[in-house]
Amino acid sequence: MTSATQLSESRRTISHMIGTVIYETLLRSTESRSMDLCKKSHCYRQLSYLQNKFSLHCNLNENREISAQKNTPHRDFYNIRKVDTHVHASSCMNQKHLLRFIKKTMKTSPGDLVHIDPFTSQPMTLDQVFKSLNLTTYELSVDTLDVHADRNAFHRFDKFNAKYNPIGQSLLRDIFVRSDNYIHGRYFAQILKEVMFDLEESKYQNAELRLSIFGCNMEEWDRLAEWATKYKVYSDNVRWLIQLPRLYDIYKAKGKLDNFGEILENFFRPLFEVTKAPPTHPELHGFLQHVVGFDSVDDESKPEHIGFYVDAPPPQNWTMTENPSYSYYLYYMYANMVTLNAFRKERGLNTFVLRPHCGEAGHVQHLIAGFLLADSIAHGLLLRKVPALQYLYYLSQIGISMSPLSNNSLFLSYHRQPLPDYFARGLNVSLSTDDPLHFHFTKEPLVEEYSIAAPIWKLSSTDLCELAKNSVLQSGFSHELKCSWLGPNYLEEGVPGNDISRNNVPDIRVAYRHETLLDELTTLLAALPSWRRTSAN
Amino acid sequence: MTSATQLSESRRTISHMIGTVIYETLLRSTESRSMDLCKKSHCYRQLSYLQNKFSLHCNLNENREISAQKNTPHRDFYNIRKVDTHVHASSCMNQKHLLRFIKKTMKTSPGDLVHIDPFTSQPMTLDQVFKSLNLTTYELSVDTLDVHADRNAFHRFDKFNAKYNPIGQSLLRDIFVRSDNYIHGRYFAQILKEVMFDLEESKYQNAELRLSIFGCNMEEWDRLAEWATKYKVYSDNVRWLIQLPRLYDIYKAKGKLDNFGEILENFFRPLFEVTKAPPTHPELHGFLQHVVGFDSVDDESKPEHIGFYVDAPPPQNWTMTENPSYSYYLYYMYANMVTLNAFRKERGLNTFVLRPHCGEAGHVQHLIAGFLLADSIAHGLLLRKVPALQYLYYLSQIGISMSPLSNNSLFLSYHRQPLPDYFARGLNVSLSTDDPLHFHFTKEPLVEEYSIAAPIWKLSSTDLCELAKNSVLQSGFSHELKCSWLGPNYLEEGVPGNDISRNNVPDIRVAYRHETLLDELTTLLAALPSWRRTSAN
Repeated sequence: MTSATQLSESRRTISHMIGTVIYETLLRSTESRSMDLCKKSHCYRQLSYLQNKFSLHCNLNENREISAQKNTPHRDFYNIRKVDTHVHASSCMNQKHLLRFIKKTMKTSPGDLVHIDPFTSQPMTLDQVFKSLNLTTYELSVDTLDVHADRNAFHRFDKFNAKYNPIGQSLLRDIFVRSDNYIHGRYFAQILKEVMFDLEESKYQNAELRLSIFGCNMEEWDRLAEWATKYKVYSDNVRWLIQLPRLYDIYKAKGKLDNFGEILENFFRPLFEVTKAPPTHPELHGFLQHVVGFDSVDDESKPEHIGFYVDAPPPQNWTMTENPSYSYYLYYMYANMVTLNAFRKERGLNTFVLRPHCGEAGHVQHLIAGFLLADSIAHGLLLRKVPALQYLYYLSQIGISMSPLSNNSLFLSYHRQPLPDYFARGLNVSLSTDDPLHFHFTKEPLVEEYSIAAPIWKLSSTDLCELAKNSVLQSGFSHELKCSWLGPNYLEEGVPGNDISRNNVPDIRVAYRHETLLDELTTLLAALPSWRRTSAN
Repeated sequence: MTSATQLSESRRTISHMIGTVIYETLLRSTESRSMDLCKKSHCYRQLSYLQNKFSLHCNLNENREISAQKNTPHRDFYNIRKVDTHVHASSCMNQKHLLRFIKKTMKTSPGDLVHIDPFTSQPMTLDQVFKSLNLTTYELSVDTLDVHADRNAFHRFDKFNAKYNPIGQSLLRDIFVRSDNYIHGRYFAQILKEVMFDLEESKYQNAELRLSIFGCNMEEWDRLAEWATKYKVYSDNVRWLIQLPRLYDIYKAKGKLDNFGEILENFFRPLFEVTKAPPTHPELHGFLQHVVGFDSVDDESKPEHIGFYVDAPPPQNWTMTENPSYSYYLYYMYANMVTLNAFRKERGLNTFVLRPHCGEAGHVQHLIAGFLLADSIAHGLLLRKVPALQYLYYLSQIGISMSPLSNNSLFLSYHRQPLPDYFARGLNVSLSTDDPLHFHFTKEPLVEEYSIAAPIWKLSSTDLCELAKNSVLQSGFSHELKCSWLGPNYLEEGVPGNDISRNNVPDIRVAYRHETLLDELTTLLAALPSWRRTSAN
């Protein structure tokens, strides 16, 4: 039998290799003897087997797991670290919080100049803005704010997007939840700092907030960094992810850009510059130390007219009005990021990972691209329809940050959510909130997410703690913090890497997961033709 | 057509009359022409019709309801009053809160004498108790506390009951969550006051906490009242319900009682005495002003060997070792309460209502007894299996306080919960927590209950506000408070009784509910034989 170390080292290689084969299978439908192994039905059978095996594990070992947790002094679900692995900064406060903040600001600073009147070109005070909207502080309620996703948003991403505008007014969104506006994002910084304060108070809750860089001009990064530095928008409990919205077609139609390459240029050039010579962008240099990765965002269910093939034009030559496909975006983000990382690593600077929205809706190609390029993905809902890919995500343990409450409002009802199946099968899933502003009710949206999943799916305390541990592993918090949160050997696989006294996950669960994965990989490795096995070893 | 006023006045009479007929039908299976109307299939059809009609109402009027709420200044789901209509005092804090309280008490008062050692008959300090259990403060966690209902409690009320004992030790339950113990309930009072403080801080959340009187001796009431008075366990946001556990058979087996009549005597005599001459029990007199009603509790799924028929012995002659049936308990509580109420009313004192646990499990007779005797019930889960009774609960608008998270742990998975059906059909349902200690995660269990129901059942903001309004109507808070919480005319039926500026329920929803109910009653009234119609008018 291949040893554990060998297997663990070659796991990613193997699964990427199989992935490539499956990719070919899916795309070109070519069949050959060596692909028998990868057939859909095999993957489906293995996933069913893994699920049943987990049920059996729980039947036999549930009481042992409970007992191991009870025997662990001091530690429980409340005081283990959890990371909200997918949450957008502009909607990370809940509706009541935003309402309170708007009311408070109106009361304390009605005279703040917040906006330029487009007709008179004169600056307007907050008070004048509210008067122009025919609103008083007293009248404002969560209902008038109207940012919660209701039944009408289901399968209507457009209606959902409109919910970002408080009281249906994009002006208020601009004033309160933007970092780059007339008041230089002062209000946005204040409310983010309140959210950060709450996270720090909770001590055990952390978040990776996603901020946007649109790629429309070269100054965006500097302005964002300046905003974060000026208002000290920073917390030990928070890291940043930077998301690039896939909006080339809109900028192109507005004449803001000539070709797709400009987006990449605007996004990556400042990063290369600051890596080469930090003093050229001192604030960006500091800001990047809290950035852990990049994201690609937009409505995945939008139709894609053009696939990503060998004959696709390179970015500089992409001058069509059509938007490039999801895979095209992702590939060029990945390619640039890899080069950037190599450069940064050489200079002793922190590197980034790609953690895109992927498989929330739309074409299955997104998930293939995610598998080949991403470190972890957000959503992965559509893996439920593609057993072969789901099996690969399992084998390679790619992180999947899932947001069942968000899905429930937009794409898939809670009772059809695949998370419990993924989890049982051993996929590396975590729980996240996506947009507390739109989906959550309480002051602790991440705990709310767990508190709904637990009873609905009858998750045990061990399950909850495993989900939380996954969230820390998937997150971009530093090695030192992860050592302290999960145990000093957390990078080791299986039981030696586990520390129940810190993460409250019983060894018996970790052993089950590890042994099961090794079994799968061993079986696969034995079945691979010898030439492939050699290259994998 | 019969006028609205006539109908509303005779509604209860009619439905009780029909109820009696159905009761006969169900019990004796006699059939006659005049009972056609009441047949199961008719009720089932009407319930389906009501449900479809509500869907239609929502399709047509959802946007109008949203708009009415948006146009209501200041008011939203967060700042309307909600009452937790069913929650037990001894489990009204969540697990984290109880843990924190125990740790704090151990730190600040390890020398408190809390218990008599049964072997040495010497008083033990809190520190000694923890040493005897082999526990330190640091070690304690939510896992060791082990009060959360897990998967193993499903359909095992016995295992669930054991969860009342922190760390599986009835001793700790006795020390921390009992009002009648060696420290005279001081800790229990302290923790309840913390819960009350949280409710007061929230401003809009209220609770009706249930305390037990066991009926074992005549001093229980006085001791309970003394405890409440001594520690000032009182809050404007809290009222009491007193529950009588159905444990005659246990007391009888232990030789504590001779006959069932003694339980009633122990429960009701002090109440009659204090009504007759308040100075004889001054503390009880004061305490009763915050008591709103009585409850009957125990595991309803326990087998009942003896039905409640005409030939059942009266309580004084019930000397068997068997427990009387649910209906027997309920009838005698009702009968004594009615007499007590008449007496108290005559003296200008507050009166009580019967709001028992009913239909959580067990025989359908419980629900028949509840229909005939109760003001409102807790659970009513089994109404889903008896359309005729469900229809009657609808017609008479008997309140049903439901706790889906509790049911999910004990008797019925969340996705099979009938609450959304009941609600759509127009039954008078509210949301409650039952036992936050066992079922909830967050600091605001009642909001947690709403925050789970809302996404899972895709409830609109109007639905949530209607549920909250029902909870206030079902509650025992004073007429004055209800006037201020719901509007001064809240007792009027239909739109004239509604005040959206206070309860955030749009008139259009209230009109729909009222007109639908009137239609049902009008149809029924027209179909009743003339002699019955005369008596109803």
